[in-house]
Amino acid sequence: MAGALPHHAPAVVLLSGGLDSAVALAAAKRDGFACHAISFDYGQRHRVELEAAARIAARAGVPHKVVGVDLRAIGGSALTDDIDVPKDRSEAELSGSVPVTYVPARNLIFLSIAAGYAQTLSAWNIFIGVNSVDYSGYPDCRWPFVEAFARAANFATGVWDDRDRATLQRPGFTIHAPLINLTKVQIIRLGRELGVDFMLTHSCYDPGESGIACGHCDSCLIRRRGFAEAGVPDPTRYHARVPAVEP
Amino acid sequence: MAGALPHHAPAVVLLSGGLDSAVALAAAKRDGFACHAISFDYGQRHRVELEAAARIAARAGVPHKVVGVDLRAIGGSALTDDIDVPKDRSEAELSGSVPVTYVPARNLIFLSIAAGYAQTLSAWNIFIGVNSVDYSGYPDCRWPFVEAFARAANFATGVWDDRDRATLQRPGFTIHAPLINLTKVQIIRLGRELGVDFMLTHSCYDPGESGIACGHCDSCLIRRRGFAEAGVPDPTRYHARVPAVEP
Repeated sequence: MAGALPHHAPAVVLLSGGLDSAVALAAAKRDGFACHAISFDYGQRHRVELEAAARIAARAGVPHKVVGVDLRAIGGSALTDDIDVPKDRSEAELSGSVPVTYVPARNLIFLSIAAGYAQTLSAWNIFIGVNSVDYSGYPDCRWPFVEAFARAANFATGVWDDRDRATLQRPGFTIHAPLINLTKVQIIRLGRELGVDFMLTHSCYDPGESGIACGHCDSCLIRRRGFAEAGVPDPTRYHARVPAVEP
Repeated sequence: MAGALPHHAPAVVLLSGGLDSAVALAAAKRDGFACHAISFDYGQRHRVELEAAARIAARAGVPHKVVGVDLRAIGGSALTDDIDVPKDRSEAELSGSVPVTYVPARNLIFLSIAAGYAQTLSAWNIFIGVNSVDYSGYPDCRWPFVEAFARAANFATGVWDDRDRATLQRPGFTIHAPLINLTKVQIIRLGRELGVDFMLTHSCYDPGESGIACGHCDSCLIRRRGFAEAGVPDPTRYHARVPAVEP
């Protein structure tokens, strides 16, 4: 893909501080984009991920912006409310319906802010590390959403102008979701290939005061299982004694 | 329209504190919706509009939520940056290209947060007071955007699920833009008809410390001209001596 692209075209990369977005950033860099990372301080209980995002951006040598958006005010999620984060759920539970850690419309909100930021940079490429293969309980991680979002963003920002359909000013936003069809195992292998330092990334939804990964929430379980299945050592420091995850 | 609607269906209404959104709220109430107003503290220099929004919501007897989203962090607008707000622009200038007061992707961002909030309320109706007739320099005030947004929101929130296209869980979001085809004069007349107290509304982009409308920014000019043309007295207190606006 890199060969066909205008190199050093600016791109905005959503960077949560987790594993997936760190790999998405590495993929954007591999493809020759001049990346601008953006993170969101949205009232998440795992706010420590913002420090991980800052470390990842610094290591990648890209500018990093943190935007505050108070999603605690709208509530409706275990990540922003005083609802318990589920622990040690079974494979079947992980693969089931929308989990309580779903933050209503989160990727819609984050991509919208990213599109506004991108417009100020004249950047028409946005990278997001969503993936829809494993545990796709979050509706805003699937392709029809990403595609519908690009259309809305093009009209919102005037890139597409309905008053003059014949002559679009610019090709418009491209939303890149390079991990969307990858399994967690494939994402971890791609990350290793691209030199992502997994030690810098944070996945845990419920790190408490210590900032140390709990090892038992959905996000920790998926991460641990991914490393185990990929046969890649997981450098994460988990809280206390975490029983081994069988691949 | 009211007759066909399930009365007291919940709706989220974007309420800026300005004239248009106050009329949109009145229209939503007229149509029988149980309204939940939402406003955004986004770093706007006319933050005083949030007090107006609170007054309008209180008068209408509807709950009101203010959500913080730091659009100063992304910049790119005279409303959030230290860029001068243009004053005393001519009719031709007002009708021209996208003004410097455009906040990148603002309505996309606000509608996204409103959709997240609506999902927590199981509200599938959202009202926004955009209008595209007069001075339609803002791309995110036109119908193709509103329509594209509804589609993105339905996928983002899982209301539409691509994995099971045949059976949509719910009809999905309806974004109501009751003013979209009205002129400013028509909006003011509709507001009067619906009993909107215009005194409670705030339009000025540049009220300074005093909170008093400047009378010269685009928003004040459009407001003043609207009242003059509608033949409705403008109850707004403008700063110092403001020359009359000819209808």
